[in-house]
Amino acid sequence: MLGLMQQEPLLISSLLTFAERHHADSEIVSRRVEGDIHRYTWREASARAKQVANALDATGLLFSDRVATLAWNGYRHLELYFGVSGSGRVLHTINPRLHPEQIAWIANHAEDQVLCFDLTFLPIVQAIHAKCPGIKRFVALCDKAKLPADSGIPNLVAYEDWIGGQKTTYDWPDFDENSASSMCYTSGTTGNPKAALYSHRSTILHAYAASMPDVMALSARDSVLPVVPMFHVNAWGIPYSAALTGCKLVFPGPALDGKSVYELLESENVSFAAGVPTVWQMLLGHLKQNGLRFSTLKRTVIGGSACPPAMIDSFREDYGVDVLHAWGMTEMSPLGTLCTLKNKHLRQAPQEQMKIRLKQGRAIFGVDMKIVGEDGRELPWDGKASGDLLVKGPWIIREYFKGEGGDPLVGGWFPTGDVATIDPDGYMQITDRSKDVIKSGGEWISSIDVENIAVAHPAVAMAACIGVRHPKWDERPIVVVVKKPGAEVSKEELLRFYEGKTAKWQIPDDVVFVDAIPLGATGKMLKTRLRETLKDYRLPGA
Amino acid sequence: MLGLMQQEPLLISSLLTFAERHHADSEIVSRRVEGDIHRYTWREASARAKQVANALDATGLLFSDRVATLAWNGYRHLELYFGVSGSGRVLHTINPRLHPEQIAWIANHAEDQVLCFDLTFLPIVQAIHAKCPGIKRFVALCDKAKLPADSGIPNLVAYEDWIGGQKTTYDWPDFDENSASSMCYTSGTTGNPKAALYSHRSTILHAYAASMPDVMALSARDSVLPVVPMFHVNAWGIPYSAALTGCKLVFPGPALDGKSVYELLESENVSFAAGVPTVWQMLLGHLKQNGLRFSTLKRTVIGGSACPPAMIDSFREDYGVDVLHAWGMTEMSPLGTLCTLKNKHLRQAPQEQMKIRLKQGRAIFGVDMKIVGEDGRELPWDGKASGDLLVKGPWIIREYFKGEGGDPLVGGWFPTGDVATIDPDGYMQITDRSKDVIKSGGEWISSIDVENIAVAHPAVAMAACIGVRHPKWDERPIVVVVKKPGAEVSKEELLRFYEGKTAKWQIPDDVVFVDAIPLGATGKMLKTRLRETLKDYRLPGA
Repeated sequence: MLGLMQQEPLLISSLLTFAERHHADSEIVSRRVEGDIHRYTWREASARAKQVANALDATGLLFSDRVATLAWNGYRHLELYFGVSGSGRVLHTINPRLHPEQIAWIANHAEDQVLCFDLTFLPIVQAIHAKCPGIKRFVALCDKAKLPADSGIPNLVAYEDWIGGQKTTYDWPDFDENSASSMCYTSGTTGNPKAALYSHRSTILHAYAASMPDVMALSARDSVLPVVPMFHVNAWGIPYSAALTGCKLVFPGPALDGKSVYELLESENVSFAAGVPTVWQMLLGHLKQNGLRFSTLKRTVIGGSACPPAMIDSFREDYGVDVLHAWGMTEMSPLGTLCTLKNKHLRQAPQEQMKIRLKQGRAIFGVDMKIVGEDGRELPWDGKASGDLLVKGPWIIREYFKGEGGDPLVGGWFPTGDVATIDPDGYMQITDRSKDVIKSGGEWISSIDVENIAVAHPAVAMAACIGVRHPKWDERPIVVVVKKPGAEVSKEELLRFYEGKTAKWQIPDDVVFVDAIPLGATGKMLKTRLRETLKDYRLPGA
Repeated sequence: MLGLMQQEPLLISSLLTFAERHHADSEIVSRRVEGDIHRYTWREASARAKQVANALDATGLLFSDRVATLAWNGYRHLELYFGVSGSGRVLHTINPRLHPEQIAWIANHAEDQVLCFDLTFLPIVQAIHAKCPGIKRFVALCDKAKLPADSGIPNLVAYEDWIGGQKTTYDWPDFDENSASSMCYTSGTTGNPKAALYSHRSTILHAYAASMPDVMALSARDSVLPVVPMFHVNAWGIPYSAALTGCKLVFPGPALDGKSVYELLESENVSFAAGVPTVWQMLLGHLKQNGLRFSTLKRTVIGGSACPPAMIDSFREDYGVDVLHAWGMTEMSPLGTLCTLKNKHLRQAPQEQMKIRLKQGRAIFGVDMKIVGEDGRELPWDGKASGDLLVKGPWIIREYFKGEGGDPLVGGWFPTGDVATIDPDGYMQITDRSKDVIKSGGEWISSIDVENIAVAHPAVAMAACIGVRHPKWDERPIVVVVKKPGAEVSKEELLRFYEGKTAKWQIPDDVVFVDAIPLGATGKMLKTRLRETLKDYRLPGA
């Protein structure tokens, strides 16, 4: 017997309709590529998103056709989020930090028909347009006056012209909530990129979950600054959760340096910000250098890669900002776990609480997770056993776009490629990427543990631990280090720094100083590249 | 094109599985009918819910068969919530405050096959069992030792016996998320009761929404006491949201007097409580009489009927507890709106903020609402125009069980029977029940406004405003008043009290003092009954 409740599909357009009706005056503030500050409200965002939908109709796009973006966090990008998906097309956000060759490959693989881009990325579009014959319309996110005259790009139009003549009304269509809404390619370090194809249903469920008190805790009283890019996993779903909660939205545009982000946090009374460690490092650096404080910032969620404990400490102790560790991935929309305490922890001493905060956190309802050993059997949640981490839930992919890479699931669970422990309270801690873990004499050494100790040294800016072949132990860890500007530390000094902080056999065998560690398109260290660079490296005495 | 996300149905069993895996140690504390305090965790609740499922299998119940409860808020009721719905049966919570005749009618209409009851309600079961031949198993929520020997009830078993021999493992079945999960009859003042038939999907979506910061703001750090009964609209969904968030749960059992509730709030470090105004009145009375304070209580949600402004004031000003006004109904699972401020209000003066807090609040994402005039046209959101309130959304009914009462929807919207205004920021304020509004000389007078002024008088405990026939004005308001014990106020004094607080023509024509105002099964004043009692009343001078 079925229940007798109303059968409303969960659609992204309903988020916009809700925001327009119930939060019409909530502010959306953007630092534009043009440099100035733009501000308007959901009322206007909604009207312009409807113009986008009408423009797509006029361009001849059908249901499920793909519209690509190469854009920063800003109001025009937001309009595309809702106008494209709301009208039944698929929003394809492209990471502009990828190589143009790869961008062209991705655009063709996705069969993009329209490409909207911030002028920052004009050179990319100039480099690829000839290789992407499927794109019938290039839209520069600017007005006519800013449109470059001799770009050489065919079918180029200024966004304001493209939507300008369109009606500000649109009847959002009703369709299956499992329809594709948006897509994002993973910046795979091996092989071609593969895309997660999100649905309206998965996006709405994720938006509910992301807003909850134990996740991003978003309310209509918040002013929210997503540093996490809208070009990668939908800025952790914040644009959707913002419409769902009616919070104020503050977009930093391309200016992610410490000074610019700080100014925006202060001028817009930001209460919550979300980002990756690298951007926060720049922000903290700016605060320290200039003796500044936060007036309104209360909490941040940090994810994208493991956050150095020292940074969590600094935010909490020096600036009174609650730092929450998050973990997720492109294939997970992206949120999987968040690290908040439980009722039972409230009476614990701060040091005990800090031990919990350093973990990646607990599963959000919707996501289940488990760790398995090499034989595939589930391992105990004792905080010690570490194994391959698998997840499942309604906002996790079941396969990649076009079936690339075959069936990724193992018995219905998605293997994350991370190695982790889970404690009896359900707190998960990433110990390594499965491909980065170092196997020394039959024992596993976590490259992340080795790196965390190195970056705790005052002279170290960045550290990457990789395994190198060893005749006796199979593999031994070495640590590749970038020193802070003007700082000095010797190999011997750094190795001594490990003593007493980890088991002796887990101390790296060598330190290699480099000027820079290669970073991928989402800011993660590219250890594959590093291993290639160091392929002729030999261990001392080996 | 469909998205490629995992297709997990939204099922109530997944809430329990989540709580068992990720919040195994979260506490569930119950004051039992037996009088003592019982405490355990989700680990044990889950094991026992599985025993319930096995017991239902053994009793021969099939998918969608109904299991009724007549029970207080407590751990055994919680086990039934998950064991019944999780295994695919339909949980039918019956309001024990209804007349036994009505309970029998409801049990037969629902085709209940099992009836589980707290011993408090033994007399009800003794009165009805012979009239309910469809019930093949009566289960007393106690152990064998407490089972009454000569109850006269056939097929009676003690709950602990019924589930005791069953296995603590159960493979929760997978099925359509739109399947019926639970049902609740409205205590309609006219005609036969009609039932809302909730689905697994509507329950899970409501549980996500109810947990959000702008709704009940539930997290794993909270200790939550639902005073709102599990026998009516699922205690506002708190049992489900508790499993979803892992908060601590504190059940008051039958002891809803001020002293008992206060003791539990203090001993279990309760941070959040939800209830109807009548219970809070008793609680505040207890605090005032004994000069007590709250140590941990931070916020309450008050709903079920319009909350007197004086009570909101008292909670906030005298006790530092944030009081949120909520509005909903059985047909809405029940939450529709909650009154929390927006970012733009944060810089307003407290008096301005208080004006907003007195409203019923803003729609929660999922719910949309509108007000219409007598011609069915949508009225403006100006905070002035008042009209019939209609709602829609995935946790609102589309029809009643067995189609009783025909199609209730009007163009896809459910008419709530409330009359309301909506202001430009989307804050809704109930001005009256459509059947209670007084039409005087072509103008509408809100009975709620008249009542609120009366209860603001220090001598008035309760007040009900009804309309009586008038030869010239069609209808005129009178106010029926219950005085506080030992307090005195004359008719003339109370009528003078209205002066300057409302327009002259809105001041009631008369005051009628009574010993008690009849209350319905959910604590609401029964104005229909009052109108009957006063049918021979004549206005002074009429």
